[in-house]
Amino acid sequence: MNKRSSIVTLLTDFGSTDAFVASMKGVILGILPRAVIIDISHEIPPHDLRRAAQVLEATIDWFPSGTVHVVVIDPGVGTNRAALAIDAGRATFVGPDNGVFGPALAKLGDRNRAYLIERRWRPTPSATFHGRDLFAPAGAEIAGGAAPKSMGRRILSLHQLPWAVPQRKGNQIVGEVAFVDHFGNLVTNIDADMLRGPRDRCEIRIGRRRIRGITESYGHAGRGRLLALVESTGHVEVALREGSAAARLQARAGTVVRVVEAG
Amino acid sequence: MNKRSSIVTLLTDFGSTDAFVASMKGVILGILPRAVIIDISHEIPPHDLRRAAQVLEATIDWFPSGTVHVVVIDPGVGTNRAALAIDAGRATFVGPDNGVFGPALAKLGDRNRAYLIERRWRPTPSATFHGRDLFAPAGAEIAGGAAPKSMGRRILSLHQLPWAVPQRKGNQIVGEVAFVDHFGNLVTNIDADMLRGPRDRCEIRIGRRRIRGITESYGHAGRGRLLALVESTGHVEVALREGSAAARLQARAGTVVRVVEAG
Amino acid sequence: MNKRSSIVTLLTDFGSTDAFVASMKGVILGILPRAVIIDISHEIPPHDLRRAAQVLEATIDWFPSGTVHVVVIDPGVGTNRAALAIDAGRATFVGPDNGVFGPALAKLGDRNRAYLIERRWRPTPSATFHGRDLFAPAGAEIAGGAAPKSMGRRILSLHQLPWAVPQRKGNQIVGEVAFVDHFGNLVTNIDADMLRGPRDRCEIRIGRRRIRGITESYGHAGRGRLLALVESTGHVEVALREGSAAARLQARAGTVVRVVEAG
Repeated sequence: MNKRSSIVTLLTDFGSTDAFVASMKGVILGILPRAVIIDISHEIPPHDLRRAAQVLEATIDWFPSGTVHVVVIDPGVGTNRAALAIDAGRATFVGPDNGVFGPALAKLGDRNRAYLIERRWRPTPSATFHGRDLFAPAGAEIAGGAAPKSMGRRILSLHQLPWAVPQRKGNQIVGEVAFVDHFGNLVTNIDADMLRGPRDRCEIRIGRRRIRGITESYGHAGRGRLLALVESTGHVEVALREGSAAARLQARAGTVVRVVEAG
Repeated sequence: MNKRSSIVTLLTDFGSTDAFVASMKGVILGILPRAVIIDISHEIPPHDLRRAAQVLEATIDWFPSGTVHVVVIDPGVGTNRAALAIDAGRATFVGPDNGVFGPALAKLGDRNRAYLIERRWRPTPSATFHGRDLFAPAGAEIAGGAAPKSMGRRILSLHQLPWAVPQRKGNQIVGEVAFVDHFGNLVTNIDADMLRGPRDRCEIRIGRRRIRGITESYGHAGRGRLLALVESTGHVEVALREGSAAARLQARAGTVVRVVEAG
Repeated sequence: MNKRSSIVTLLTDFGSTDAFVASMKGVILGILPRAVIIDISHEIPPHDLRRAAQVLEATIDWFPSGTVHVVVIDPGVGTNRAALAIDAGRATFVGPDNGVFGPALAKLGDRNRAYLIERRWRPTPSATFHGRDLFAPAGAEIAGGAAPKSMGRRILSLHQLPWAVPQRKGNQIVGEVAFVDHFGNLVTNIDADMLRGPRDRCEIRIGRRRIRGITESYGHAGRGRLLALVESTGHVEVALREGSAAARLQARAGTVVRVVEAG
């Protein structure tokens, strides 16, 4: 018996029109008929590793132990970039070695072991679609109980993406918009745990706008008013009640955000 | 044993890119591993309670008895709006008290009991994402057999949304476009049961356009021609064969539609 | 016992906002609670039978034997177009007779038997939504073990769509762009098996552009460079590394593509 949950999640930039995603699901069901396949997203902008890394990081805590996350954002498919199966304890990650797993691994404590996927399920796997021919079968086998280490040799060094880290300068924290969510909310890279003073007395600065205090939720501001709050994964967020802060402020990923705490 | 079907449907305005929907699914599977999770839609325009109410109403008849529908369109999250679990007999509804369940409850006969969700699954639930921290776990527990009344105290009065009701004036029925569907069809709020005379002899008026008779289906008009028919949930619809009536007529939700019956 | 896999796939042009798709899923689960429902796509452009046929053809090989594919692109709903259940051996196809199954059937070897769906599950099925009232229940019953021939009389002649076939003229193959995928890659109708000479020495011509050789994968060209490769279902594809070849070349389905082989 194994501790796997039979849950396989999929996170890609494949979109929802072509045969890509369905082909992966067919392969998974062929190997593990009882698989519970959950789409995290297939609407990651093409090749946007950072956005995929953020979505993965925000998702993993909520899945049962034993879940296998297959993440295929793969501009380097068919080159010598490595194919990975990473045993991270309560979760396993499968996908190309492009840095997309970094934030999720850091969150899980970085006690993990990464293995190359050296097995082959087809005599001639496609050079352009390892999602279907390599990562889907590896994910299905691991969700069915196979050990990640059965996939191939251990690999010690993984590709890393550079990430902007918020800086504290005296009573200021200088960070940036990490991403804009579906509602146009500006999720920053500033973890609310960085704040030292009372949250209702700090000031959030973005461009020329200043927002007084961090409120509890959207409904605590008047309609059409800007506000700041701590979003559901713990980061400071700038929002517009029932509107798009991104559109109002012409802000996007990378826009500087400062939190100034009361002296 | 319980009569639950283990089916949990999700209807939100969360979109398909962020971690919101997947987080809810992870929580549900953590509580009820055998859950059958069905997406109704996550593409409801942000905060559009009416559109969500319409989609829910059109969907509920087709799901097995015991289905739990979790509906999270929640601009008021974190304020004092109530969190509900509504036992409506063959279906249970879970979500914020914002009027979105009204049409579905009316359709099921209004013999229902609503309960506050007063239980907590986490010591500090997020103030901005009750979908994940409150409604997903409540939905999963109810789909697994828990009684809606086990969630908290009964509540007698629910929030209501105002709805335009079609009016009969002599041989005319005056209604409006309730929503525009994916194909650009104009679904009105006029139930075909309101018609008294022969359907092929009435006239549908929208703006300056007049359509003679209600035909059976799209293929009964010439390509590129406007037609009227009874759509699949029983309402009068104005359509353009293999095209968008909304684009052709510059019509949208709220546009007045009249049905004039033969004298 | 039956050989069915309980897998029902759905391929439609219904979009992701309305109640259409969820209603079909509810009907399927009502008939076959253990059904494994997989979305192939609901984002096929409205009424685009060719695109649906291409996606279906690219998908079927990857699903387990016994899978039932329900495909509803149905501008002719409510007219006298036939409703089909096609036993194609390892797969069954269910949907309106509009030619969408042609390429998939040809790929499976054309040893198939088609039956009319003459059964009725409701006394008055909607004239506009056979997806819900006819094809979903037929698909669920077949996935549950019912024989396609139990649906109705056999039908011998199916509707066909015309397809452009690539032509060989001396050392040239003249084909066209079959479709543009999510990334803007131009997938042609030229099967790589048509090539006679060495792949690295042919030339691909599209408009005024000439691409030297067919490379192995995207990463083998410089960023922002055009390349040609064999995509994951075996066709010649013109791509732009980490960009959209369709946008760069102003190409779309139907654009002529020539492969000139070394003399």
